[in-house]
Amino acid sequence: MKALVYLGSERKPPSALQERPKPGVTAPTDAIVKVTMTTICGTDLHILKGDVATCDPGRILGHEGVGVIEEVGAAVTTFKPGDRVLISCITACGKCEYCRRLMYSHCVNGGWILGNKIDGTQAEFVRIPYAETSLYPIPDGADEEALVMLSDILPTGFECGVLNGKVQPGGSVAIVGSGPIGLAALLTAQFYSPAEIIMIDLDDNRLEVAKRFGATAGVNSGDGKAVAKVMGLTGGRGVDTAIEAVGVPATFELCQQLVAPGGVIANIGVHGTKVDLHLESLWDRNISITTRLVDTVSTPMLLKSLGSKKIDPKLLITHRFKLDRILDAYDTFGHAAKTKALKVIVEA
Amino acid sequence: MKALVYLGSERKPPSALQERPKPGVTAPTDAIVKVTMTTICGTDLHILKGDVATCDPGRILGHEGVGVIEEVGAAVTTFKPGDRVLISCITACGKCEYCRRLMYSHCVNGGWILGNKIDGTQAEFVRIPYAETSLYPIPDGADEEALVMLSDILPTGFECGVLNGKVQPGGSVAIVGSGPIGLAALLTAQFYSPAEIIMIDLDDNRLEVAKRFGATAGVNSGDGKAVAKVMGLTGGRGVDTAIEAVGVPATFELCQQLVAPGGVIANIGVHGTKVDLHLESLWDRNISITTRLVDTVSTPMLLKSLGSKKIDPKLLITHRFKLDRILDAYDTFGHAAKTKALKVIVEA
Amino acid sequence: MKALVYLGSERKPPSALQERPKPGVTAPTDAIVKVTMTTICGTDLHILKGDVATCDPGRILGHEGVGVIEEVGAAVTTFKPGDRVLISCITACGKCEYCRRLMYSHCVNGGWILGNKIDGTQAEFVRIPYAETSLYPIPDGADEEALVMLSDILPTGFECGVLNGKVQPGGSVAIVGSGPIGLAALLTAQFYSPAEIIMIDLDDNRLEVAKRFGATAGVNSGDGKAVAKVMGLTGGRGVDTAIEAVGVPATFELCQQLVAPGGVIANIGVHGTKVDLHLESLWDRNISITTRLVDTVSTPMLLKSLGSKKIDPKLLITHRFKLDRILDAYDTFGHAAKTKALKVIVEA
Amino acid sequence: MKALVYLGSERKPPSALQERPKPGVTAPTDAIVKVTMTTICGTDLHILKGDVATCDPGRILGHEGVGVIEEVGAAVTTFKPGDRVLISCITACGKCEYCRRLMYSHCVNGGWILGNKIDGTQAEFVRIPYAETSLYPIPDGADEEALVMLSDILPTGFECGVLNGKVQPGGSVAIVGSGPIGLAALLTAQFYSPAEIIMIDLDDNRLEVAKRFGATAGVNSGDGKAVAKVMGLTGGRGVDTAIEAVGVPATFELCQQLVAPGGVIANIGVHGTKVDLHLESLWDRNISITTRLVDTVSTPMLLKSLGSKKIDPKLLITHRFKLDRILDAYDTFGHAAKTKALKVIVEA
Repeated sequence: MKALVYLGSERKPPSALQERPKPGVTAPTDAIVKVTMTTICGTDLHILKGDVATCDPGRILGHEGVGVIEEVGAAVTTFKPGDRVLISCITACGKCEYCRRLMYSHCVNGGWILGNKIDGTQAEFVRIPYAETSLYPIPDGADEEALVMLSDILPTGFECGVLNGKVQPGGSVAIVGSGPIGLAALLTAQFYSPAEIIMIDLDDNRLEVAKRFGATAGVNSGDGKAVAKVMGLTGGRGVDTAIEAVGVPATFELCQQLVAPGGVIANIGVHGTKVDLHLESLWDRNISITTRLVDTVSTPMLLKSLGSKKIDPKLLITHRFKLDRILDAYDTFGHAAKTKALKVIVEA
Repeated sequence: MKALVYLGSERKPPSALQERPKPGVTAPTDAIVKVTMTTICGTDLHILKGDVATCDPGRILGHEGVGVIEEVGAAVTTFKPGDRVLISCITACGKCEYCRRLMYSHCVNGGWILGNKIDGTQAEFVRIPYAETSLYPIPDGADEEALVMLSDILPTGFECGVLNGKVQPGGSVAIVGSGPIGLAALLTAQFYSPAEIIMIDLDDNRLEVAKRFGATAGVNSGDGKAVAKVMGLTGGRGVDTAIEAVGVPATFELCQQLVAPGGVIANIGVHGTKVDLHLESLWDRNISITTRLVDTVSTPMLLKSLGSKKIDPKLLITHRFKLDRILDAYDTFGHAAKTKALKVIVEA
Repeated sequence: MKALVYLGSERKPPSALQERPKPGVTAPTDAIVKVTMTTICGTDLHILKGDVATCDPGRILGHEGVGVIEEVGAAVTTFKPGDRVLISCITACGKCEYCRRLMYSHCVNGGWILGNKIDGTQAEFVRIPYAETSLYPIPDGADEEALVMLSDILPTGFECGVLNGKVQPGGSVAIVGSGPIGLAALLTAQFYSPAEIIMIDLDDNRLEVAKRFGATAGVNSGDGKAVAKVMGLTGGRGVDTAIEAVGVPATFELCQQLVAPGGVIANIGVHGTKVDLHLESLWDRNISITTRLVDTVSTPMLLKSLGSKKIDPKLLITHRFKLDRILDAYDTFGHAAKTKALKVIVEA
Repeated sequence: MKALVYLGSERKPPSALQERPKPGVTAPTDAIVKVTMTTICGTDLHILKGDVATCDPGRILGHEGVGVIEEVGAAVTTFKPGDRVLISCITACGKCEYCRRLMYSHCVNGGWILGNKIDGTQAEFVRIPYAETSLYPIPDGADEEALVMLSDILPTGFECGVLNGKVQPGGSVAIVGSGPIGLAALLTAQFYSPAEIIMIDLDDNRLEVAKRFGATAGVNSGDGKAVAKVMGLTGGRGVDTAIEAVGVPATFELCQQLVAPGGVIANIGVHGTKVDLHLESLWDRNISITTRLVDTVSTPMLLKSLGSKKIDPKLLITHRFKLDRILDAYDTFGHAAKTKALKVIVEA
């Protein structure tokens, strides 16, 4: 089968479309899925740069996608060949201490392993361990492209940003970073009807997109006046929820200046270095700061919301490619400032 | 001043528009409010029928409205004459055990007293005890008619139905009763983007109104098949939230048949008799049943949501009258099946 | 192997200790457990009386116990023969919609099936389906008798009574019914250090036991003055949490009279008939009523609390028998008023 | 009257016991309290060092105490002269946005003002603004010394450490810092019966005190091996709740190393500088970090718990002085390493 394989960050190019053997069932709880659509995540770009130590050369990339069950292990009873499924980016064994606390991200047998510690979805077939707790049946009539957004980006924006950030009716939200993940937070924040959602970014184009997606205001932070602008929009109080959707010290610092007493800073960004935490001014502000790797516990809710048209994930899709041209897809996704790419669909 | 006075349920008519002395400040925490708009509540009709034992003849009716501060007591510092205010149907002293637990409805010095134990808002002026915790400043530019809906009906639908009912994104809701209070629950349930909101009523006209207000389905229960229809709409599971918005045994019974395991029956209805609770089938269903007199703790949130246009309370307003014609307003409101009245505005 | 078998409620006696074949693995997710200790539940008595329609004659009874893994199916990796395990009264598949919401009691593949729809633990061996999510490893050094109390009675008292009842530091609790399940609620309520725990029963002996177990007051309701006494003990307010631990209309009615505004009635009792719910007086009291079949989600917490000696479940054990004499154990347990039995240990 | 007055941090000594005029009612919501007992807080020492910019020379210090109502303003109806009262360290107007969200610490008319922005309790009399929401009636028979611990230290340890830290039955807690505030967290953590409470300090004497107060383990962090020791005590997982009760970067850093996935770092310490937050390792750990100035919303619960003997606050009291000798009391409290002082009582 065709598969996109990570070759090592020092290689040029660091990945290649190769022919690889089709995977088979290796445990009674496995399923083999024929991938019909997948996509590319910012994390995949990090792997190519060598930022993800757990991912070794030779690995098939990809942790998002939808497909059709090809084969199941002896213990799998809820899926059978031919069933259409959504692949979760998080593999959950369903039985460890963390899974039983609904913290699938910290599953001791799974977690984020797809396209990282085991072969992933940017291929014609993929083996999914613990299939019954890591795959979701697709309702009849559901749009496959929309569903691909439910593998990772929408639950990540929702769980790490919106749920952790305690977005509420009447509340005020600032989302720092208007890239795909910030926009996913923006889309899902609207489940709770906050009074204000202020998007902050350096790129006016992305702020325009954000307004089309439902932001009540866009603030370009390039002039260093973002704090003053947000204070102006919130009666000087700051925001109830500040969502960090970039992953660098400057944006986390900005969140600390934006959050109102009693508010939450919900971190989504993947950080590579430590940041300054200004406890000298925050110790008495009654705030919370949260971190999270997505657990994908919200997937059933997102499937229902998609079914009832309460959310339109296809807004995030800007480009489409065949699997044969996945390197072009990476190129487009990797140069988003130029291509204005948000999420790209790769059809297998 | 002109005021609508309750004469006693045995009198015909049981109320009259009378000339009464303008009220004055009697405690340092009082404010006198010049009423600009008020409305009529189903509870007012109950008073006229003699159902509310705490309300004596001679009482000026009404517990909803907006107005302008006319005079304040010596301890009132947050309002001054000329300030526009929203009057809460619940008077909160802000200092008793219940107020400090945010259960204003059970305030030992207040609670629902306006137009019940003390003179109310269907008059040119009204005295509001504990003004600083019972009145809300009106934002500039806010629509007064919309605000009148925030005195009682919207917080009641929201707190007793939606909040107590734990309405959630992706969830399913059934609202039994599509009168004004059921519709208020319908409007505010949408703050949480549930996947399904099924309205149930005996009146097709009201179900049509409900669909315009955002219901995903309407079920006429007149044929005795409401349970089967709701089960059909929810994959046989029943609903996560069943809101009782009528107040009779039959509708509470229906809620017990509609609620899914793990769900909530949130009662809004004012009940005059006991009901059957089928613990023989519900004891192991992991459900909750909640009751509540509105606390109006959600008023600040509703004001923000109104300001950000996340809700349109004016949808509930069907008729408008001057205070001089308040008896006509009662007549219209009291014959809703014929007049299709939901809420009527009375302008003072 | 020896096993206690239900013969039918019309038979005299309705059960018998019989020789039955040792069970074997039938699905890859099964485990066979050699039972070392089991106990008898009030529900077992209901089966013998014919109250449990799902339990057919021929069934081996029992849903509580500890034992040693004898054999595991191919998909079971977290247990191996020789491991000591606690058997949960609730079988959880870990993968259905309800299991993934932590409502194991409503597991579509399990729930309460042991000793009900499939053969149970009052035998030398038992087959446990979905072993990895229905058994718990026993920490070294743990007391087996104490552990038997964690199969059902302690999680039931805790989840249905204490957790659902929102017992809090400083709060007031009334537990109606001082039998084994009421006492289990009493023991576990103390995890939250409420200011008052008032036990109510008709039997002075049981009230004495309750005081030894930590009740702050005991009220004999035989004189019909229980409400007045509880009001006297709570400054006229009633209790924050009223736990129903009997299962008849009169005790549920009592709870309705005891609960304070803002409080919870947490039902544990298994009810055979409908009850009166006095919505005419409760509709505006801001209370909740909860029902629940135990989910055993608290088992890991209870194991930790047992390990740290924060609870002493052996207080509940009054009698001990060998499996050969299990009919005597039933007799003792079934005549608790005379024998003062709470829980009996049956050693296999 | 006699009063301890702050003279300025540059003065030697920076405070003096002076004769000052007895305060009078200046607003209708005021009360004048004759102080019977007060105490000294670590914050008072900070004021003397000049660390609290809001406190000007000339200020009477002190924000803790109990006393007797001497006089009340015209709007005060719940207290009358002669009533015994507990003085909260936080003044709450009860009517601002923050008070109505139960965030009294951020009251726009109050907050921590006593002995800071207005004259405090280390005097014979004190004026308490917003008396009805800032004082608490003392139950008959309550021990006054114990009550003084409820002004600040117990609600601070409880709200900022235990409540924010989500301490739970069966959970594991590490408290970094075994001074008075860490010990207050230790005492109140036991309301929730966690399985483990590990105290960490540099002083073996304080760790011994902690064990007497209920700690399950004491770890002296002087050898730099605290993390390894805590991991050893928690099966390598870390703790569910890490409470920072010192206020320096090193202890906050330690908390980051101790917290388990899914856990909380609850900050109590008053920090003077920024700290490092290791988002590069914490971004995917699903943790929360909380900050808080005490709101004293838990005072009613603490009063009930004191009344029911669920807590013994007098354990914290090590020394007693008359008001005449308050400078000696400061000396003793300020040299705690030598005097082993925890809290000192000053009798007026």
